[in-house]
Amino acid sequence: MRTPAQNAELALLLEVAGTPKPGNIDRHRELEDLRFEHFLAGTVGARDGLELAANGSAIGPAFERAIEGMATQGGGNTQFGALLLLVPLVRAARDECSQPIVEAVCEETTVADAAGFYRAFDHVDVFVADPPTDMEPLDVRRGSDAIPALEARGLTLFDVMDHSVPGDDVAREWVTGFERSFTAAERLADADGPLTDRAATVFLSLLADRPDTLVVNRHDEAIAKEVTERAGELVDRNALETDRDAVEAFADELVDRGVNPGTTADITAAGLFIALEHGAVSV
Amino acid sequence: MRTPAQNAELALLLEVAGTPKPGNIDRHRELEDLRFEHFLAGTVGARDGLELAANGSAIGPAFERAIEGMATQGGGNTQFGALLLLVPLVRAARDECSQPIVEAVCEETTVADAAGFYRAFDHVDVFVADPPTDMEPLDVRRGSDAIPALEARGLTLFDVMDHSVPGDDVAREWVTGFERSFTAAERLADADGPLTDRAATVFLSLLADRPDTLVVNRHDEAIAKEVTERAGELVDRNALETDRDAVEAFADELVDRGVNPGTTADITAAGLFIALEHGAVSV
Repeated sequence: MRTPAQNAELALLLEVAGTPKPGNIDRHRELEDLRFEHFLAGTVGARDGLELAANGSAIGPAFERAIEGMATQGGGNTQFGALLLLVPLVRAARDECSQPIVEAVCEETTVADAAGFYRAFDHVDVFVADPPTDMEPLDVRRGSDAIPALEARGLTLFDVMDHSVPGDDVAREWVTGFERSFTAAERLADADGPLTDRAATVFLSLLADRPDTLVVNRHDEAIAKEVTERAGELVDRNALETDRDAVEAFADELVDRGVNPGTTADITAAGLFIALEHGAVSV
Repeated sequence: MRTPAQNAELALLLEVAGTPKPGNIDRHRELEDLRFEHFLAGTVGARDGLELAANGSAIGPAFERAIEGMATQGGGNTQFGALLLLVPLVRAARDECSQPIVEAVCEETTVADAAGFYRAFDHVDVFVADPPTDMEPLDVRRGSDAIPALEARGLTLFDVMDHSVPGDDVAREWVTGFERSFTAAERLADADGPLTDRAATVFLSLLADRPDTLVVNRHDEAIAKEVTERAGELVDRNALETDRDAVEAFADELVDRGVNPGTTADITAAGLFIALEHGAVSV
């Protein structure tokens, strides 16, 4: 019987081990400066922050600790978005890993939690889009320097997430009761085979559902739409079962083009945690 | 900066991720009932026992806890031998991760530590050779049922390891001051490239040094010798650099034949821990 913090660490590992996950690092694909081993070290480092959340710590400090630990490796940002989903889920799992409880955890966050979130950006470079002009003082890339502006406006972490929607589908989970994460968990339970294969299957299905917001922000809407349509075409013809080479080729192509649907991977990790926590899947 | 328990967990992950490691599960090779994901879950589960050792717990209880946690997955024994090396190494790292200190940690083990070691066998099936007749009451496969006989003879965990040499090269590390583990660490530091590649390089070199005792026990001396000679031939012509396909083919062949040099993998994991702990390698 694993604890919630253990399940969260395992979810991070299973997500990155799942292959093929088009455009993402997985156990068969890596970049020269962002390798599989960076993800392994990142998950090991994140565990202490996850334990804080499991022990009832506030979300902001637990998240900052998880990111600080994740960043103790040379690859930089490995699973920032996944941890932004896992920390409230682990906190919720103290009571129950359900949509209403995690929704309450998020809604009850404070300005201090938002400050912890901003401090997390001091530990690691995260790709984010430019904010609108009136939000410039609150650009997350300012890290802890933005905290006075945050406090002046009295924004909680939930408010910060709410301001990031639309445009960031990790933040969207925070304001929709983790709708897609729970859907991912159901799909993981319904899929067949080893859990890392299920992770790949569900990743592709999520990618087919909505354009990945990290791809939109790093590239543009057109590329994100193209990726989603091609994923949809592969899902429609059940290519992971019937034409695996086509999915592998798509994966190679996206890695070569530097198109990385990281938000979809984050939601896959959250789904893995929920499914493990519910005992709906096992390893 | 990772703690010793974190470095130990990371060493377990890097060992199994290193590929190709002929005959072993790695991130490109798995069996239907022993998969990469079982190792991931096993490492996550082992962490609490490693933390106990890092916090100064006695070796026996820390080891039992690590194995109990490792076994909370469906693949059975994933990294038992590696943990038998890592637990005293982590305990030593409280002072210094050096040969004299780990030697002292092992020599100072008690009968109670031996009892913890036997209890660990209650949690998981481990392949071991039949003991000589006079040692039958102390067959580790009896698990905790053997503890009265152990106590009657007053055997410490160090004594138990000493009785297992020759024939078990994990036990041999205990009575030789972790000689091969420290050699592995030096080789890891001297090798080139990502750490998972170095793990594969050093695994092959260790396999070429001595017949793997798990292969001897599961199969026979002849097969173990054949494997060592073929590994030596690959090392001599630097095949991982010059003819990687030959190493990959050797790896596939051993997996197909069910020949699993697990002891060599255990020593590789111990070497990874030492090298990480010394800062001689980084991720």
